[in-house]
Amino acid sequence: MPFRDECGVFGIAPQAEAARQTYLGLYALQHRGQEAAGICSGDAEGLHLHKAQGYVADVFSETVLDALPGDAAIGHTRYSTTGGNVASAAHPFLIHGRFGQVALCHNGNLTNTEALRARLIADGHTFTSPSDSEVLLALINRAQADTLEDAVVAALREAKGAYSLLILTEDALLAARDPHGFRPLAMGRMGGTTVFSSETCAFDLVGAAYVRDVEPGEMVIVPRQGGEARSRFPLPRVQPRPCVFEHIYFARPDSLVYGQSVMAARREMGRLLARRHPVEADLVVPVPDSGVSAALGYSEESGIPFDFGIIRNHYVGRTFIEPKQTIRSFGVKVKLNPVRHLLAGKRVVLVDDSIVRGTTSKKIVQMVREAGAREVHLRIACPPTTHSCFYGIDTPKRQHLIASYMPVEEITAFVEADTLGYLAMEDLQASVGDDGQGFCYACFNGDYPVAPSGE
Amino acid sequence: MPFRDECGVFGIAPQAEAARQTYLGLYALQHRGQEAAGICSGDAEGLHLHKAQGYVADVFSETVLDALPGDAAIGHTRYSTTGGNVASAAHPFLIHGRFGQVALCHNGNLTNTEALRARLIADGHTFTSPSDSEVLLALINRAQADTLEDAVVAALREAKGAYSLLILTEDALLAARDPHGFRPLAMGRMGGTTVFSSETCAFDLVGAAYVRDVEPGEMVIVPRQGGEARSRFPLPRVQPRPCVFEHIYFARPDSLVYGQSVMAARREMGRLLARRHPVEADLVVPVPDSGVSAALGYSEESGIPFDFGIIRNHYVGRTFIEPKQTIRSFGVKVKLNPVRHLLAGKRVVLVDDSIVRGTTSKKIVQMVREAGAREVHLRIACPPTTHSCFYGIDTPKRQHLIASYMPVEEITAFVEADTLGYLAMEDLQASVGDDGQGFCYACFNGDYPVAPSGE
Amino acid sequence: MPFRDECGVFGIAPQAEAARQTYLGLYALQHRGQEAAGICSGDAEGLHLHKAQGYVADVFSETVLDALPGDAAIGHTRYSTTGGNVASAAHPFLIHGRFGQVALCHNGNLTNTEALRARLIADGHTFTSPSDSEVLLALINRAQADTLEDAVVAALREAKGAYSLLILTEDALLAARDPHGFRPLAMGRMGGTTVFSSETCAFDLVGAAYVRDVEPGEMVIVPRQGGEARSRFPLPRVQPRPCVFEHIYFARPDSLVYGQSVMAARREMGRLLARRHPVEADLVVPVPDSGVSAALGYSEESGIPFDFGIIRNHYVGRTFIEPKQTIRSFGVKVKLNPVRHLLAGKRVVLVDDSIVRGTTSKKIVQMVREAGAREVHLRIACPPTTHSCFYGIDTPKRQHLIASYMPVEEITAFVEADTLGYLAMEDLQASVGDDGQGFCYACFNGDYPVAPSGE
Amino acid sequence: MPFRDECGVFGIAPQAEAARQTYLGLYALQHRGQEAAGICSGDAEGLHLHKAQGYVADVFSETVLDALPGDAAIGHTRYSTTGGNVASAAHPFLIHGRFGQVALCHNGNLTNTEALRARLIADGHTFTSPSDSEVLLALINRAQADTLEDAVVAALREAKGAYSLLILTEDALLAARDPHGFRPLAMGRMGGTTVFSSETCAFDLVGAAYVRDVEPGEMVIVPRQGGEARSRFPLPRVQPRPCVFEHIYFARPDSLVYGQSVMAARREMGRLLARRHPVEADLVVPVPDSGVSAALGYSEESGIPFDFGIIRNHYVGRTFIEPKQTIRSFGVKVKLNPVRHLLAGKRVVLVDDSIVRGTTSKKIVQMVREAGAREVHLRIACPPTTHSCFYGIDTPKRQHLIASYMPVEEITAFVEADTLGYLAMEDLQASVGDDGQGFCYACFNGDYPVAPSGE
Repeated sequence: MPFRDECGVFGIAPQAEAARQTYLGLYALQHRGQEAAGICSGDAEGLHLHKAQGYVADVFSETVLDALPGDAAIGHTRYSTTGGNVASAAHPFLIHGRFGQVALCHNGNLTNTEALRARLIADGHTFTSPSDSEVLLALINRAQADTLEDAVVAALREAKGAYSLLILTEDALLAARDPHGFRPLAMGRMGGTTVFSSETCAFDLVGAAYVRDVEPGEMVIVPRQGGEARSRFPLPRVQPRPCVFEHIYFARPDSLVYGQSVMAARREMGRLLARRHPVEADLVVPVPDSGVSAALGYSEESGIPFDFGIIRNHYVGRTFIEPKQTIRSFGVKVKLNPVRHLLAGKRVVLVDDSIVRGTTSKKIVQMVREAGAREVHLRIACPPTTHSCFYGIDTPKRQHLIASYMPVEEITAFVEADTLGYLAMEDLQASVGDDGQGFCYACFNGDYPVAPSGE
Repeated sequence: MPFRDECGVFGIAPQAEAARQTYLGLYALQHRGQEAAGICSGDAEGLHLHKAQGYVADVFSETVLDALPGDAAIGHTRYSTTGGNVASAAHPFLIHGRFGQVALCHNGNLTNTEALRARLIADGHTFTSPSDSEVLLALINRAQADTLEDAVVAALREAKGAYSLLILTEDALLAARDPHGFRPLAMGRMGGTTVFSSETCAFDLVGAAYVRDVEPGEMVIVPRQGGEARSRFPLPRVQPRPCVFEHIYFARPDSLVYGQSVMAARREMGRLLARRHPVEADLVVPVPDSGVSAALGYSEESGIPFDFGIIRNHYVGRTFIEPKQTIRSFGVKVKLNPVRHLLAGKRVVLVDDSIVRGTTSKKIVQMVREAGAREVHLRIACPPTTHSCFYGIDTPKRQHLIASYMPVEEITAFVEADTLGYLAMEDLQASVGDDGQGFCYACFNGDYPVAPSGE
Repeated sequence: MPFRDECGVFGIAPQAEAARQTYLGLYALQHRGQEAAGICSGDAEGLHLHKAQGYVADVFSETVLDALPGDAAIGHTRYSTTGGNVASAAHPFLIHGRFGQVALCHNGNLTNTEALRARLIADGHTFTSPSDSEVLLALINRAQADTLEDAVVAALREAKGAYSLLILTEDALLAARDPHGFRPLAMGRMGGTTVFSSETCAFDLVGAAYVRDVEPGEMVIVPRQGGEARSRFPLPRVQPRPCVFEHIYFARPDSLVYGQSVMAARREMGRLLARRHPVEADLVVPVPDSGVSAALGYSEESGIPFDFGIIRNHYVGRTFIEPKQTIRSFGVKVKLNPVRHLLAGKRVVLVDDSIVRGTTSKKIVQMVREAGAREVHLRIACPPTTHSCFYGIDTPKRQHLIASYMPVEEITAFVEADTLGYLAMEDLQASVGDDGQGFCYACFNGDYPVAPSGE
Repeated sequence: MPFRDECGVFGIAPQAEAARQTYLGLYALQHRGQEAAGICSGDAEGLHLHKAQGYVADVFSETVLDALPGDAAIGHTRYSTTGGNVASAAHPFLIHGRFGQVALCHNGNLTNTEALRARLIADGHTFTSPSDSEVLLALINRAQADTLEDAVVAALREAKGAYSLLILTEDALLAARDPHGFRPLAMGRMGGTTVFSSETCAFDLVGAAYVRDVEPGEMVIVPRQGGEARSRFPLPRVQPRPCVFEHIYFARPDSLVYGQSVMAARREMGRLLARRHPVEADLVVPVPDSGVSAALGYSEESGIPFDFGIIRNHYVGRTFIEPKQTIRSFGVKVKLNPVRHLLAGKRVVLVDDSIVRGTTSKKIVQMVREAGAREVHLRIACPPTTHSCFYGIDTPKRQHLIASYMPVEEITAFVEADTLGYLAMEDLQASVGDDGQGFCYACFNGDYPVAPSGE
């Protein structure tokens, strides 16, 4: 239970009932953001937008989807990163401008938003929200370019940071990914229809086949009238650095991310973790749901039996009312419940995906111990998280990341584990099939491919 | 994914913030019913009731809970069995009658409701809903008895069938369980407070310790003013026959049911299933979430690796809007998604908890096969389900239960599995520690402890 | 602005779309109760009920009305009198009992509810709310009678007090009015359809013609299959005493009540008030809306010009949020605003329908004076209100009625009027065409036709 | 019942609880727009906005108002004119731009919106809605000016048409009115606080005193920190032409508009109408509510008695569900009901404020006749409406205005009146105290002070 998730995007064209297909896609991407959802569709009349706070299933009804006609659509599920958790920051954003109506949504975070925004404001532009999506739209609209497509290219040349974005215009659906490819963006196909999604699990639900990823630095243009999708690489080529945390935590295990199985990567992390940090124990227990695959790998490699010693209540909603006079903390207990008979008297290997502040890990270790575990050996399926993310993930400030100011032995004591083992960086790299350059590991090593703020 | 779940009850007294504690309890019992929820609390002013359709988290707000003051409370989460899925059938039911205000909620189903109702109506009584809870309340109110407690006893002597019920009066909280103990009812303790719950997972959340089950045929009376809880056994003793399906499917794995770990029973079912129906295969895959423990047992016993070859989308809500012109069925796909890379080319042992109509199993087998599985060997962690339940579980009519009209070989063909193996009855008994008499197996063998309808 | 309104009932049979016609009827009766609304319809399947808190327009939607099919319906708009303003007390009430399904709603108040309820409870009956409608239904269900119709008669023989009630059964629509005829109930006709309504303004909207009133003590039975409506007078004949306050305040001016024009009666009250309490003045100003007709009558008789010196904001809803730090009272100001240029320097005759506690009248007089009126002569279109109502109108306890403890001169001083004149009792009688026996004037003279409480 | 109403604005500074005071103001201006409402407040943190579709009482709750802190606020009630009735078009609009945060709302309609918008888009600006408020904000933001105040001036020099606008900035509250003063805007005072409102009835509710109107072409700047409000007249002076229809229909009768009593003007219209179009009749009946004052004037002048022969149901909400199989039209009947006993056999003078398409008037005349009137003489308190409005009022296209294509005699026949008399133009002028130049009468004579569309 590490950083909160960030955002999911989905787009489709040309396709009858494009908005309903996008609704399906967002349904499958709901895990990437539960704060707000939106869809913009386009027909011959123009673009049609609906966005609101809430789950996909609550934001859209038959009536709402009927009001989103057309052959193309883009959609977004949002977990607030920058921009505040306000209604006005829900995606997509729709403008009327030089190129007619243009709608945009993205996953990611620009690092030079402030500078761009200041310059655009100085140039006379105005904004209705703090969202960097509005900055992208303004850059597009004011670009020195005659076509929307060239304007997008011009805008992307100015934008720094992380973005996997979808743009819907009166003629086309565009997809683009920043040169480092920080955030994922997959491309699929069903008949003559092109589909884009943050993760392939959405393709599975709509019935599309995964073709390939939109490449870092690539722009794909899908004409709404039909015809071949075109590809351009208008941005300077750099070493791609996709976010490794998608594999560690964010993505659904049944997704391919960067063309690779998330579940397989996680299982390998567990195996290597077992090899690196073996321990004599009776039971491997995952912190559900994100620790499950790594725990299975740990169990496989170590030969220690696996079981669900902690059960997650999946009915936990957005609200939970605590008793007024309680002194107990319900934070973790509402979601997770230990299975006493399984844990009692056991030496437990507890596998989680990461440690952020350390406080939640501490509560879980306590919970497992109170349920009777004799020993608790905490195993973390990634290296110590020491740096904040500036590319679209909602992390605490660096000083709140426990691994940034405490050595592992002290963390072990803090979380009250008997032993604590993190995945080694080289093992993480091996798990995701990286030769050392292919991913962004900034949250582990501070090696930021793009300067964290501004230029 | 078998029969739908049935109902959960929770009660507590004496306890400050009784309604808020009950809210916690219902939160933990949400899996037992998502249609409606209700709480009735009591203070010196009388009883206070709030019930509505929806999830616990939606039905109750701070404002609503503030309007439920008092030292004692009972609550209910409902999945409609008999009585229709109408607002008027939500529990608890509250009457003003001979014994002042009395509120009641229960899990279960009376088999002689129609006869009792007809007699009560002939006697001049009226009902506001088709609920058998109202019948129980009427029996209590009209009993030849001077005290509420005796009136409840008199009523229970007339009621046939299954009930685990909680009653809140102006003086006491009563819990009672039918003589066969069809439905579970656990009793817990926190300080001087007595707690009742369908499952112990609710005790874990409120912080109570499990003491024992309310026994079949037992009535426990907890004075609201404090003081010792009293126990009575006013009903004729019969051989207890608790529902075995709680262990197979209904209960949360982290609960104790009938004093026994649900998860341990399920794992044992998987082990015995592997011993009874071994197969040469590459991967054991559960149908999540209910097949997970049995699949782990199967894997353990068979030595075939376990993995989550099917992922469940836990964000699936009550509504899902399908495209209008689709020919695809989204029924199973919305919830479950196969993990292609895991399944491709594999000989898969697919473990599910049961088969009802056979259509869902068929879709899942197809799904796994389309994801690339070379062979699909379906293993079911219970015997063939051949008879309907009349004790509080929402089963189809007998003629819709595939195992009631098809031998196993034909079912194998119907669901398009390579092989199909059901748990043997004796293995089921062994898994739950039964010597052959201790559970209700009517859905497997038609041996109904109480005549299904009427007297 | 006197007593709050009480309730409206509407019923129709046989008629296609009976629920939708009832919706229209309730729409026209909305002024009689804004707290809750409900409709019960009947088709071959049985009775169908929907009721909820709120305005008619909010409680019913197309979807809700589609779920209320059938050839007959009864409906209710509620302003809480006895029974508390709780959701459970909305009408109609529907029971399943000896006579199958029976639904009932009424306008009025039984005076012997407590005694009846106590007896019924002693006899083993139970209630789900404090409503006297449930008492009526219980009396019907337990009557010594073989037919529903005779059971209703038996029940009505036990009920004391005020009721204009509608009953819907599986066969018939019944209307009945207490022997004194305290509350109005009109009967209308459209083609072969019979319609009942508290006021005739509902007939105007549905397009029915007023035929006559249901007589005091009469029961009218309308077969749902069609055929002639039958009339019975099963109750002992007494001198009818219909509530005179319907003419003074409750009814819509465009209604006939007791067969007589409300507006004409009010205008005559104003004329006689002018004759009884003349004053030299410049302007007659009504307190809108209820004082308008009397003010026109006063103006006509006195020759003093009439104008709307106070304007009512008709957009005032149920909620109004006052500034937190205000010391001003918004109670009256939100609804009423004086027209400064009209009032400035004028000697004003202010005409209102009644004075209850005196505090509102005082605020209005102040408001008119602050707007510049030189003199304010308050004229009240009814006699001093000295006694509480026990027949269905929500009046304060007697001790809060200013006229019960203050002579007119003191009230004049209290409300800060220059002069104050009430309508004389004989003038009220003349206005409504009464020879002295025909109405209930209990709120003016304490002459209660039925003992206020109990037997 | 003529043209629909248009919009109301309210602003206040400096004032504790500015948003709550604005809420009060909008409550009083609700008659000017029921589609949407919004408030933007400002404190040291910045500006805070809430707007939504619905009534003021529904859009704002305690929680919402608590989230609108600060010492200054502007608010808006909206009836859609241009811009479509969509959520995105609710006011105020808030931008982040060159001058920090700036919020704006207005009543009126720019005639050169299209040209300005096209130019701004060509210059690289973008819009999120079709609203001309966004155009004004863009003009302000892009003006060649160093201060916000000068930028507003520059923007207003480009805007043509009708606007009474309020602007909230980080420092000041600005009010401005177009040079012709088409739409009203009053200025009031309470202590050191300045208040602006479309109508003075809002001052009455908040407790402010009317000081004067914001003059046509004037801009008033109220520093949020306190200190004297400043006035500027930065726009070329032209002959003011305030909308006369405010006096005829829009404004509440208790308001001063253009410093003059609305009710007095209407009464005078009625008097002059009686002088111009006398008729022998028995009763003067207004079409409520807008025809009431003129009808009183007609009655006074003619000596024919006045009475409410038509009653309006004030509970009519936004939705009304008609029976499915009806052939009757409920359009007028839902709102208006004739009083049969008053009208029967009478020669009726029916007074309405205007005739638009003629269809509603025809229905009302029919209704009055069906209620028994022997003769119906229709009198209209304004001249024939022959031209559309382009200054902020929602009128039909010219070809739908019956008086644009039919002489009065034919209209008389069309509406089936016995006689029909319109107010003469000179009488209208006399009623509002105009010497012939002072008002906009374009809807009566096509004399448009500003070219209807474009430059």
